[in-house]
Amino acid sequence: MPSDQQEVHLVSRPTGTPTMDNFELTSGKIKEITDGQFMAKTLWLSVDPYMRGRMKEGKSYVEPFSVGEPLQGGCIGRVIKSKNGYFKEGLYVSTMGPWAEFFVSNGQDVQVVDASVPLQHYLGALGMPGLTAYAGIQRIAKPETGQTIFVSSASGAVGSMVCQLCKARGCSVIGSSGSSDKIRWLKETLALDAVINYKEQDSLSQALANAAPDGIHLYWDNVGAEHLEAAIDNLKTYGRIVGCGMIASYNSEEPPKAPRNLMQIIGKRLTFQGMLVFDHSDLQSEFIKEAKTLLAEGNLVIEETIIEGLENAPQAFLGLFEGNNLGKMLVRVATD
Amino acid sequence: MPSDQQEVHLVSRPTGTPTMDNFELTSGKIKEITDGQFMAKTLWLSVDPYMRGRMKEGKSYVEPFSVGEPLQGGCIGRVIKSKNGYFKEGLYVSTMGPWAEFFVSNGQDVQVVDASVPLQHYLGALGMPGLTAYAGIQRIAKPETGQTIFVSSASGAVGSMVCQLCKARGCSVIGSSGSSDKIRWLKETLALDAVINYKEQDSLSQALANAAPDGIHLYWDNVGAEHLEAAIDNLKTYGRIVGCGMIASYNSEEPPKAPRNLMQIIGKRLTFQGMLVFDHSDLQSEFIKEAKTLLAEGNLVIEETIIEGLENAPQAFLGLFEGNNLGKMLVRVATD
Repeated sequence: MPSDQQEVHLVSRPTGTPTMDNFELTSGKIKEITDGQFMAKTLWLSVDPYMRGRMKEGKSYVEPFSVGEPLQGGCIGRVIKSKNGYFKEGLYVSTMGPWAEFFVSNGQDVQVVDASVPLQHYLGALGMPGLTAYAGIQRIAKPETGQTIFVSSASGAVGSMVCQLCKARGCSVIGSSGSSDKIRWLKETLALDAVINYKEQDSLSQALANAAPDGIHLYWDNVGAEHLEAAIDNLKTYGRIVGCGMIASYNSEEPPKAPRNLMQIIGKRLTFQGMLVFDHSDLQSEFIKEAKTLLAEGNLVIEETIIEGLENAPQAFLGLFEGNNLGKMLVRVATD
Repeated sequence: MPSDQQEVHLVSRPTGTPTMDNFELTSGKIKEITDGQFMAKTLWLSVDPYMRGRMKEGKSYVEPFSVGEPLQGGCIGRVIKSKNGYFKEGLYVSTMGPWAEFFVSNGQDVQVVDASVPLQHYLGALGMPGLTAYAGIQRIAKPETGQTIFVSSASGAVGSMVCQLCKARGCSVIGSSGSSDKIRWLKETLALDAVINYKEQDSLSQALANAAPDGIHLYWDNVGAEHLEAAIDNLKTYGRIVGCGMIASYNSEEPPKAPRNLMQIIGKRLTFQGMLVFDHSDLQSEFIKEAKTLLAEGNLVIEETIIEGLENAPQAFLGLFEGNNLGKMLVRVATD
């Protein structure tokens, strides 16, 4: 067992779009474990858009990251040393952990995961993004067979699950994305009913109207701004919006100019409801059950973009805002 | 019975804020009634902010007004001639009618009203604005005892009813308005818990934070824009917004700059739901029952701003956007 490990620290808070200068690969001491604790070797790290919010100072629904400390995020590890009766050596675990080669835990908020599926799925389709999609669908969106759903960032970790869970419920799904490769994947692999490359549209609202001439029942928002505006323009009376993310604005210093059509919320009696996955952890087991069933039946496609090496975690994170990922963006820290 | 009557026509569609030039007082023919119809003498006309939307071309949730025709709105009349077995001479009726001295109807969407209260109340506190407040509270806002509610345009026809119905439900109510007279009325007559003259604030958001240091549970939006932004800033987790009106934008050619903080809808898991009173006419009788009970107990203050004469209806309407009304803005067309 070495005494030092590699860690990735936040060294300055980003202004606007984060850059590599905000991060530093550095050396840190590996802690000893005490009674009740275990140590795990980090195998996988998750990078997620919401982490941009934790890089800011000030209160939010999660604590901000500390400058000069390792970043934190979802991770998968293997227990390599344990003084905890439950988390025994050799078990695989999923939790929030540091961007580091090893992590120490007392077991709080740690789930044991099994290797019946590739472990990294527990950070994506079978993890937080998947549960986000499932909980938003079950508790907020409540799509009905035959309804038309518009999903922005449809090829992302959450979006691709929303699309597939809605297809499984008999909905017609329209997805937007920003590259021709993703658009092809959405159309050919996920078999969406319509796709929109938003970067190729003069008017996103008109493109959506063309894809859904009778309007949409539901909009799943991962993007905000012009996407939200286009959705409001095209929602039917009593339509609903699930507010899940607004990635278009995460790096902006300026507030977004859109949506400019909020008044339609009144005329069409729309409902716009925000959600965070943390409120819905009670759905975890029923979600895993449905997802594993769909997977076993061949009705769930899990796509992942894998970046190799802890040292490349900042690059993986920055890539989220460039749209470099198809499906879940992951960092492989070690092979086992 | 004369053969001609005075009518107020829309002669051009307003651009931005409407002006007197958009209206014309003119002479029209009084129609003869046929079997099943009745004729009523117009006693009261209602002018309401939503009518601005009907002055635009293009589809909305109600038909646009026609240029060269009388405007239409809520009115109270007395039946003076009838070939309808139900709507007999002498009855008072409430309906949507033309801005004219007389109107003819077959009885569709006409309610008989009784003179146990001043008739014009059926256009305000006991009419559409009152039902708007009641339905929004019962079906969308669902305020609970002890909760804190922020109501914009609190001294208006809808706002003043929302304030009083929420007070009757044991809520703490904060109201905003734009004149010191109205602020005094809200404080002294309606006994609101806090009041904000929005025209006197550098930051409406900060003013609301001062009035509700622990945040608000609910925002009733009659205004939109900066009011909506301030409310979003101050809503508690799981807070709700009832979208009832956005008068700040009705006359704007430019989309409003605010709210710039929609991202908080996600972090705070807010719900923003739009409403129109037309969906809730089934609540009419239970609403009237509660309102008349509160009135009889002395727990409902009904304030009205009365403009005399059909010829002054355009001025009354324009006054809505100047904030000239305390409570419901009404036009008295005839005394009986």
